[in-house]
Amino acid sequence: MSGGVVYLGGGTKLQTACGFEDSTEAMFDYLMASVGDGSDEAKIKLYCEGSVAHYDWLVDQGVPFKETYYYGYSGEPPTDDGLVWSGSEQVYPYCDVATPAPRGHVVAVPGPAGHKLMSSLCEKLATTQAEIALNTVCDALYQTTDGAIIGARLRTFGETRNVRALGGVIIATGGFVLNDEMLETYNPKAKDCSMRVAADGDDGSGIQMGMQAGADSLHLDKLSVSLPVTQPWSLKSGLLVNDQGQRFINEDAYYGRLGEQTLLHQNGRAWLIVDDEIYTKPEYGFELCAVGETPIELARELGLPEGALESTIDFFNEHAARGEDPLFHKREPFLMPLTKAPFGAIDCTTQNSRYAVFTLGGLATDVDGQVLDAKSRPIPGLFAAGRATSGLAVGGYSSGLSLGDGTFFGRRAGRLASERSRQV
Amino acid sequence: MSGGVVYLGGGTKLQTACGFEDSTEAMFDYLMASVGDGSDEAKIKLYCEGSVAHYDWLVDQGVPFKETYYYGYSGEPPTDDGLVWSGSEQVYPYCDVATPAPRGHVVAVPGPAGHKLMSSLCEKLATTQAEIALNTVCDALYQTTDGAIIGARLRTFGETRNVRALGGVIIATGGFVLNDEMLETYNPKAKDCSMRVAADGDDGSGIQMGMQAGADSLHLDKLSVSLPVTQPWSLKSGLLVNDQGQRFINEDAYYGRLGEQTLLHQNGRAWLIVDDEIYTKPEYGFELCAVGETPIELARELGLPEGALESTIDFFNEHAARGEDPLFHKREPFLMPLTKAPFGAIDCTTQNSRYAVFTLGGLATDVDGQVLDAKSRPIPGLFAAGRATSGLAVGGYSSGLSLGDGTFFGRRAGRLASERSRQV
Repeated sequence: MSGGVVYLGGGTKLQTACGFEDSTEAMFDYLMASVGDGSDEAKIKLYCEGSVAHYDWLVDQGVPFKETYYYGYSGEPPTDDGLVWSGSEQVYPYCDVATPAPRGHVVAVPGPAGHKLMSSLCEKLATTQAEIALNTVCDALYQTTDGAIIGARLRTFGETRNVRALGGVIIATGGFVLNDEMLETYNPKAKDCSMRVAADGDDGSGIQMGMQAGADSLHLDKLSVSLPVTQPWSLKSGLLVNDQGQRFINEDAYYGRLGEQTLLHQNGRAWLIVDDEIYTKPEYGFELCAVGETPIELARELGLPEGALESTIDFFNEHAARGEDPLFHKREPFLMPLTKAPFGAIDCTTQNSRYAVFTLGGLATDVDGQVLDAKSRPIPGLFAAGRATSGLAVGGYSSGLSLGDGTFFGRRAGRLASERSRQV
Repeated sequence: MSGGVVYLGGGTKLQTACGFEDSTEAMFDYLMASVGDGSDEAKIKLYCEGSVAHYDWLVDQGVPFKETYYYGYSGEPPTDDGLVWSGSEQVYPYCDVATPAPRGHVVAVPGPAGHKLMSSLCEKLATTQAEIALNTVCDALYQTTDGAIIGARLRTFGETRNVRALGGVIIATGGFVLNDEMLETYNPKAKDCSMRVAADGDDGSGIQMGMQAGADSLHLDKLSVSLPVTQPWSLKSGLLVNDQGQRFINEDAYYGRLGEQTLLHQNGRAWLIVDDEIYTKPEYGFELCAVGETPIELARELGLPEGALESTIDFFNEHAARGEDPLFHKREPFLMPLTKAPFGAIDCTTQNSRYAVFTLGGLATDVDGQVLDAKSRPIPGLFAAGRATSGLAVGGYSSGLSLGDGTFFGRRAGRLASERSRQV
């Protein structure tokens, strides 16, 4: 299901080929401003500094990227183009914080391209001496009384095998969005979302195994939530309003930000208001749920408080006509008055529309993927990477950060585990 | 610093003496609706069922409560009256969920009364055989390789003592709002608050000690945040607006709810708009930061987007004149149009006003205070109670829940630990 977008920047070959300038500093500033409170500055810094080289490494492994740019689509494009905007870099408030650049590096397959990233890396892996155990579940770790991880118990079709871990065990089992009990404990709102972005294994078992070995966990309450209602982008000209008929965000923000704000701050209750001029059929099954010849009629259809929606639209139109959005700073080319009847409301409630959710929290790790205990001391021999860890994004998500996180810090974990095995 | 309010209900002697009817069900329904997502239903159920008896127990221990009711004050009253409203029971949306009753049981001392609750219980304790070690820090737990806690290391003025724990160790060290590093990790917004409600020991060391012994933690990101701007209550007639000049809550909500919404959903940016009719000097150092003859002038002073505040006030006034608040359902007697110039804005930004914060998350425990590991199995011999645990409130706070939590579940932990010691 992965889109195959890797969030990279600082002036990669792909960015340069497409005519974009970027810097490590701008990438760092954008991420620090956008990925959520309590982020790990050391990880973000290292990631930005190593981003150009990481892109080259992916290419060296045989991951295909086409050196072309696609405008006007969030997430992976319908084409095999290589570079897209995959965050809110161009919009308020981030455009004022850091010079924007597109940083979504997309594997060269039209549509969801994660499978191609995976198969490319697997092909490369097949040329090494690594042994791969398929259809195999790790159901226990062996730990000394001093806390060090020295092995794992593996199960394959009922047969059990005990493996000595010379360098260590790396947990890379993904998040826990398929574990209802963990969601109920850490952030029940995730369960309101209609689509859980997950592979079958995203059940949190790896995270729990780490915690049982004494690992600390971080940000288990944090989610990535996408509300992809502004696709095609012309729908960014609509007005996203809440239960009170009020706007609450600049609608040109990335759909990851729209989803987060709507689910977590507006209780998953919103509608995208459009007029006849800007309306176009949205993707992903979003649907008109009310139409009216006037805003008042539309509001009545929606059951919104009398006069509230009308007041919101009037206020917006008056300023938009002057090219201004004093409340939320939506920008050109998506800033225009909505005046042409009929008016419509696209349903963006959790009940009736697509909210795509996955978890961002996980095991506490250092920049080398070493799993940390409650005192921030590494647990010897235990590593983790990807969504099984708390990584780059801890609340505010831009597409490509998970693949970036997993591959970048996974490499670092692998490198250190490998060094450790040579010391034994 | 504790106010000495205990949240109890279901028809306590004090409620009955003051002429209020209450039921276990109404108390349960209110708490389930208000204490936040991911709450522990089993704890809440037991707490409501045991609430009447718990009040009697407190009285039996010599904790004084005066059987009188005080109206019009949030938190502990200025008098020694015994019963107050200490939550949002009477206001939207909770008034529609459960029959309201005041449940703040306040120890009979004017003003902050927590010290009297503590001294009463300490006096009772002094009549038992319990040995009390003052000026003593527990800096380590002794744990068998099987995980059981069998003792503790204590330090008193440089001298170290090792204590065998027959029944167990009960961690009751409070929250972690004085630990900047933990706040940075779990919810940095707490650091924006001007007042941390804490005793010196609320540094999270007890929680960390538990986690190092393999305990799971829950809801470490959750806070109680009070914004006590609507004291005296006549200020509830004001309009709380955000950076966009929009209202975002019914202003008659409890100050714990105002604080939570403003800090966590409005980024700690708000002003309480008043007119000359309702203005009265607020308590707790809140101050007018702008005055204007018209809403437009006031908004200009505040630097709010042009026209937004005016539109908010017009909309509110039009409906309030008819006794309606279609947006947020503020209720009589605090619902009236603001029309009498001059208009003023009371500063409710985190920078310039009082936000009183403490942490709600902590060690995972069962209903008997047993500390749980990541697999929800009790760690033998390890107990916890109070704000060192994740207790009744995990996001939405009513005053008195912490003292209630600590005393109610502390008693249960003590009882089980004591039984365990007799089995040894």
